[in-house]
Amino acid sequence: MRKFDINEDPHRRYNPLINEWVLVSPHRSKRPWQGQKEAVNTVALPQYDPECYLCAGNVRANGEVNPAYESSFVFENDFAALKQEPIDFGGNEEGSFFKAQPERGISRVVCFSPRHDLTLPEMDVDGIVNIIHTWQKEYTDLGNVDYINHVQIFENKGSVMGCSNPHPHGQIWAQSSLPTQVEKTQNNLKAYFEKNGTNLLQDYLKEELKVKERVVVENNHFAAIVPFWAIWPFETMIISKRHITKITDFTEDEVAAFADVLKRLTTKYDNLFETSFPYSSGIHQAPTDGEAHQEWQFHMHFYPPLLRSASVKKFMVGYEMMGESQRDITPEKSAEMLRNLSEVHYKQK
Amino acid sequence: MRKFDINEDPHRRYNPLINEWVLVSPHRSKRPWQGQKEAVNTVALPQYDPECYLCAGNVRANGEVNPAYESSFVFENDFAALKQEPIDFGGNEEGSFFKAQPERGISRVVCFSPRHDLTLPEMDVDGIVNIIHTWQKEYTDLGNVDYINHVQIFENKGSVMGCSNPHPHGQIWAQSSLPTQVEKTQNNLKAYFEKNGTNLLQDYLKEELKVKERVVVENNHFAAIVPFWAIWPFETMIISKRHITKITDFTEDEVAAFADVLKRLTTKYDNLFETSFPYSSGIHQAPTDGEAHQEWQFHMHFYPPLLRSASVKKFMVGYEMMGESQRDITPEKSAEMLRNLSEVHYKQK
Ligand SMILES: O=P(O)(O)O[C@H]1O[C@H](CO)[C@@H](O)[C@H](O)[C@H]1O
Ligand SMILES: O=P(O)(O)O[C@H]1O[C@H](CO)[C@@H](O)[C@H](O)[C@H]1O
Repeated sequence: MRKFDINEDPHRRYNPLINEWVLVSPHRSKRPWQGQKEAVNTVALPQYDPECYLCAGNVRANGEVNPAYESSFVFENDFAALKQEPIDFGGNEEGSFFKAQPERGISRVVCFSPRHDLTLPEMDVDGIVNIIHTWQKEYTDLGNVDYINHVQIFENKGSVMGCSNPHPHGQIWAQSSLPTQVEKTQNNLKAYFEKNGTNLLQDYLKEELKVKERVVVENNHFAAIVPFWAIWPFETMIISKRHITKITDFTEDEVAAFADVLKRLTTKYDNLFETSFPYSSGIHQAPTDGEAHQEWQFHMHFYPPLLRSASVKKFMVGYEMMGESQRDITPEKSAEMLRNLSEVHYKQK
Repeated sequence: MRKFDINEDPHRRYNPLINEWVLVSPHRSKRPWQGQKEAVNTVALPQYDPECYLCAGNVRANGEVNPAYESSFVFENDFAALKQEPIDFGGNEEGSFFKAQPERGISRVVCFSPRHDLTLPEMDVDGIVNIIHTWQKEYTDLGNVDYINHVQIFENKGSVMGCSNPHPHGQIWAQSSLPTQVEKTQNNLKAYFEKNGTNLLQDYLKEELKVKERVVVENNHFAAIVPFWAIWPFETMIISKRHITKITDFTEDEVAAFADVLKRLTTKYDNLFETSFPYSSGIHQAPTDGEAHQEWQFHMHFYPPLLRSASVKKFMVGYEMMGESQRDITPEKSAEMLRNLSEVHYKQK
């Protein structure tokens, strides 16, 4: 019988953050693709677009006028999924399958800068530092609202990720309850902390920094790695080297180092297929419920859909929806590809 | 304070099958959409396509020739994600984060019929009965393979769901381990069965058949409903009215009734936006590990991506990936829309 070769044989990998497995089929990356291709937008964007509802000075859908902002700009989402109004909840019938509860929250949009044409990798480090400061302020302000217990900072980049306006921006959805994925993560971080007295992601990062093979970008304070259990072909996670539970605990050195990792990682992403690389990214950190949450570790996920080129993405469909997430290219191979890419943006060459 | 109105106020609903919540934002269905639109294929397909590697008599990628099949046709996937070869697994290092295990399995493709142009709703009931018989045979044959403990039957329909060949077909991935989603479901079914001595989905279906508002299609033996906790805008689930753990337990009456529900449900789907409605569907049922699995209940999920028209889909992206699944239109509204649609296929009018 052949000995198990993780680089060749179909296998499952365990994700301790969410207590789930992923199916890895290394041999399958050679299969031809005759299916749907994504449209690739190659039109250069202007610095300012008079039709864009996010550009400075323009009018939004609800008639409000954006200020002549010069760095980042935050406003309440005009089509928020959550509402701030308190609701009188009568409770659910005991034992009923129809279990629901009202949910209060605040949704905000964060325009990264007035420049309609500059995504993260094309901004300078100071501009990114400014975004991180904005995230810190929002985490604090929203977290201080009495009924808000969780602040989800995220970005949908690219039309393939459901982003309807190319003006670089992210979102923040803050709410009363812990969202499902965060609660799952917290349960696993907590169980690990109670068992070992240490932080799961800190211990994991130490193992990764020893073997190096999944590290993409690193500096004094942060590392971006392709997790051993990554689902998306070029998924990465940024983790701080110091045990930090939330973004407001960063020193100014760490803010600068985080900006550096963000710029270098997203530049490599753009360079991979020489396209503005689509992804959803999001920060996972301690809830704002007033507890200490020593079990938490600040980290940021990047879930990019592309697989083989600017137009061929991975479809997480039938088997993946009914059974289990599945990937073809191994995390080690993806990390190697990303690591070997230049840190100079392809448009600047 | 206003009283909670489930038809108007943002809220969360609980899914007892997987122990997760979904965020529902009923008021948000009115937001305008300026983002990506899907290509809609309006070209009529021929009954036979000489270029199709699934049509009868044609040559596949690996050089094999399809037989002149007349009903359904099953073959091993030429680019299988799983391999049958046994692998010598040394085990994982104790306490390591790099936890992996080889996985054996068999992947098959099920062509629904020789007709290149007939999807489920356009086939006659006899043709669908024949597919169900094929699924039964495959569940038995694959389940009997010594190292196979789970048989996942599914279909990816439409290019937006990663389907690369329009010839109507489904797939079967059979493997040693219980896939993540199935294991989660089983854990919850088991806990319920041990606590109540009854089946979770049977008890749930009874509640649904009492209130009726989420029922889309029903006959003597089956009902298709939009689950109270549905994630996708027009998600449905087919459940048998009798407690059945697996597809091979169907009586011939039940086979016919299942075919009837499949045809009526998928016809309504096509009629909704007068398009060949994309979805991933899949059957969840008892594993083939030799245990009795009284906690199980046969059911079939349909996860369709479309939201507002043939070209506007729901994006499960940033917040949904990092936080929690989110929907705009309520399950009750979706069920009502589907229920009110004709059961005659729009192409036949
Ligand atoms: O096997 P196919 O149809 O080529 O591929 C499709 O279904 C598979 C199973 O859901 C997925 O892993 C692929 O991402 C998808 O493109
Ligand atoms: O808020 P947007 O950018 O209009 O919408 C996008 O992001 C949201 C949050 O991830 C999703 O719920 C939407 O499906 C997606 O299209």
